[in-house]
Amino acid sequence: MNDVLQQLTSVLEQRKSAAPDQSYVASLHEKGLNKILEKLGEECVETILAAKDAQLSGNKQDLIYETADLWFHSLVMLSHLDESADSVLNELRRRFDLSGLDEKASRSKS
Amino acid sequence: MNDVLQQLTSVLEQRKSAAPDQSYVASLHEKGLNKILEKLGEECVETILAAKDAQLSGNKQDLIYETADLWFHSLVMLSHLDESADSVLNELRRRFDLSGLDEKASRSKS
Amino acid sequence: MNDVLQQLTSVLEQRKSAAPDQSYVASLHEKGLNKILEKLGEECVETILAAKDAQLSGNKQDLIYETADLWFHSLVMLSHLDESADSVLNELRRRFDLSGLDEKASRSKS
Amino acid sequence: MNDVLQQLTSVLEQRKSAAPDQSYVASLHEKGLNKILEKLGEECVETILAAKDAQLSGNKQDLIYETADLWFHSLVMLSHLDESADSVLNELRRRFDLSGLDEKASRSKS
Repeated sequence: MNDVLQQLTSVLEQRKSAAPDQSYVASLHEKGLNKILEKLGEECVETILAAKDAQLSGNKQDLIYETADLWFHSLVMLSHLDESADSVLNELRRRFDLSGLDEKASRSKS
Repeated sequence: MNDVLQQLTSVLEQRKSAAPDQSYVASLHEKGLNKILEKLGEECVETILAAKDAQLSGNKQDLIYETADLWFHSLVMLSHLDESADSVLNELRRRFDLSGLDEKASRSKS
Repeated sequence: MNDVLQQLTSVLEQRKSAAPDQSYVASLHEKGLNKILEKLGEECVETILAAKDAQLSGNKQDLIYETADLWFHSLVMLSHLDESADSVLNELRRRFDLSGLDEKASRSKS
Repeated sequence: MNDVLQQLTSVLEQRKSAAPDQSYVASLHEKGLNKILEKLGEECVETILAAKDAQLSGNKQDLIYETADLWFHSLVMLSHLDESADSVLNELRRRFDLSGLDEKASRSKS
């Protein structure tokens, strides 16, 4: 389970150079950053709606599915900008190790 | 690196029962799902803005930071609804293993 | 110019009972609130991206277009929940008249 | 009722040059476009959550309030980029007059 994000990162790198008409990922890269960010925003809203519905119904399937879409498109965004999951996981580990996760997360935000 | 999300999930479970005035995570749970989803939405917008700025400036630091915030708050959301990162990673693995990632991701969406 | 939102509200009421295969608005109502809110979220992200691009390029056309889409879909949402632009304009007027716009807007938010 | 957006536009123009420590609007302009767009995104998510809750409870007060916040911050965004409500209302009127609102709104989107 632990290396799913790394495996996905590797797959995403391969798809980056695939033919846009044969790969969804390649088609996103071809359309450009705005299109990728529109998808990220869409998946975030769908995750929010799925969370509201899950709280009422107790059914978590859509929530899991939409969160997977959200993470997936955030990985595509990172790949488009030549970054990867490891940078983000490093940042999360850094916050966790150095001073505790909550304290970092609760920092004041401009 | 591979077990950061699992470690975080474990930390988040502990914080769920902490005192709200001493833990940012506990304070989010006390405020409820709407507050957690507002934070998720905020972090998504900040990620989108950071990605636009990164494309221009070449500086990726804010992008990494905001994506970490986005993933972090999605983990809090999952925890609030008694789900965890493993369910989402399983879903990503399932798409990846069974029929290829791109094909699943490009399914038509209602 | 002043009555565009009222005219639109009136058109939207008529379209609410149109055939879903002949009216975009009727098709949104048939698909339900989640679909309408997904569209609202999409248009908000597209507005944000258009604003970033407008600041760089000086070209405001997309910004105007996407903001029109955002307002339009917020009117469809209000109509779906049996509310209208007048309620929102009343609220804006109330804030403006009673104690000044800025003060109301700067209220602390939970 | 019809001229609320025009009155608001006029107030927003005045506040643009006010002291940032005395006007919420002036403080937003001073913080810059990203901050204004973060607020727009926040208000959109709060509108979405209020709409979901309104559908369940039948109580529309929060929905009206959050939609007013959404429109208000979209007016601040337009003002920051030297545009105004009239440009957006013109665009909505243009779609309405020329070929019918629904047809324009249902255009295919990339």
